[in-house]
Amino acid sequence: MNAMSMPSRLELHALTGVPLVRAGDDLAALLGAGLQHAGLVPVAGDVLVVAQKVVSKAEGRHVLLADIEPSERARQLAAEVDKDPRLVELILRESARIIRAAPGVIIVQHRLGIVCANAGIDQSNVEHDRGECALLLPRDPDGSARALRSALRDRTGVALGVVITDSINRPWRLGTVGIAVGSAGITVLDDRRGQHDLFGRELQVTMSNRADSIATAALLIMGETRESVPAVLLRGLPAEDSDQSARQAIRPPHEDLFL
Amino acid sequence: MNAMSMPSRLELHALTGVPLVRAGDDLAALLGAGLQHAGLVPVAGDVLVVAQKVVSKAEGRHVLLADIEPSERARQLAAEVDKDPRLVELILRESARIIRAAPGVIIVQHRLGIVCANAGIDQSNVEHDRGECALLLPRDPDGSARALRSALRDRTGVALGVVITDSINRPWRLGTVGIAVGSAGITVLDDRRGQHDLFGRELQVTMSNRADSIATAALLIMGETRESVPAVLLRGLPAEDSDQSARQAIRPPHEDLFL
Repeated sequence: MNAMSMPSRLELHALTGVPLVRAGDDLAALLGAGLQHAGLVPVAGDVLVVAQKVVSKAEGRHVLLADIEPSERARQLAAEVDKDPRLVELILRESARIIRAAPGVIIVQHRLGIVCANAGIDQSNVEHDRGECALLLPRDPDGSARALRSALRDRTGVALGVVITDSINRPWRLGTVGIAVGSAGITVLDDRRGQHDLFGRELQVTMSNRADSIATAALLIMGETRESVPAVLLRGLPAEDSDQSARQAIRPPHEDLFL
Repeated sequence: MNAMSMPSRLELHALTGVPLVRAGDDLAALLGAGLQHAGLVPVAGDVLVVAQKVVSKAEGRHVLLADIEPSERARQLAAEVDKDPRLVELILRESARIIRAAPGVIIVQHRLGIVCANAGIDQSNVEHDRGECALLLPRDPDGSARALRSALRDRTGVALGVVITDSINRPWRLGTVGIAVGSAGITVLDDRRGQHDLFGRELQVTMSNRADSIATAALLIMGETRESVPAVLLRGLPAEDSDQSARQAIRPPHEDLFL
């Protein structure tokens, strides 16, 4: 849906009390219970924003570093950036290309198209009880979002929008913000090209990324340290049934005038 | 304030019914009336997110293109990018450096440090009744935010946080999002370096940009075309009295590993 009408009020509700998610868990069941626990009965238009980390955990995207044999290329790069060669091997496997490498950081374009540090591989808030562990992004985050939407529809009777959020660093600006690494059922790019302003002039800035705005709004009450809020319900947007997905927000490199 | 406690619920309220803002208007008075009209009585912790455009309008940052004499450099660049040489002259005057120029677009680092297209100069939703007009960013958006915070405190008795939001395009991702071009009274960079995760491991991603997240959350109910929502009240964050400003979110170029 394009050129959506604007609501006058939004609410964001943190889902607390959801148990720590482990590989193989039924995430829809856990989040459905979390909604109930919070007294939230889903209504059309609601968007459930889910932390990437819990999606990856439920999907078993953990890798034991002890199981990884670094390639020669990984060893060389690891020496340059002073990182564990096994972690660098994982970063290389997850990436389409390296944007920049410097001591302490490797910035890549992930195979999913997302540009981020360390291919989005995370070692915070991950259990290391079987040895040092890393958590990869979901294999197909848009697919994960669609599956969650479908399972939650079966469970609640309402087709919630789903956004999978992760926090990233950016060029030019300090501090992380959230982006939508996956989504289902919501308008990702709200396209207003061809529309006119209050004074009848054709609009200049014409397409907003609603998915990223939703993803980062949720982080305001999700936190990233010890708060254990795996999801946030956003209420107040108009009901819709978009078939857009977060993948569509990847800017084709040949159209990228910033770089 | 760092390492803020997380609220479990946030609300965003659009301020509708605010008249079109004109140069010299008392913006605090208009927004104060807008809050009253919406039945919103400010409480500690509230953040008022104000569209950059109305701040610029109130501050009279309009420029009549007929009054601009383009330099030789502006004429040359205008020919390259197929833009009005007078507009290009304004872009050059507002900018510290040009990042990229291509047909239809000039991406610059604004003197304020913000990297954006056309130096943030806007011709949409601007009156052109005295001839073609352009609207510049506020001269000192953090100062504008502080002044608004102070005037609203005098008016309401509550020291609201203030964020001035504008929408920008980004590398790698399609669709605009909001950023804080100015702010007062809120934590811009929420620094969690040195803290530990649920399992006692030091955190990797350690500093989030709350101002930008607030700025873009508000855009979800602000719109950019004809909705005429000049401000959004965000309620639910803990009360604070930070002396940070949006300027602090500019990443020093020599620390920028992305580019």
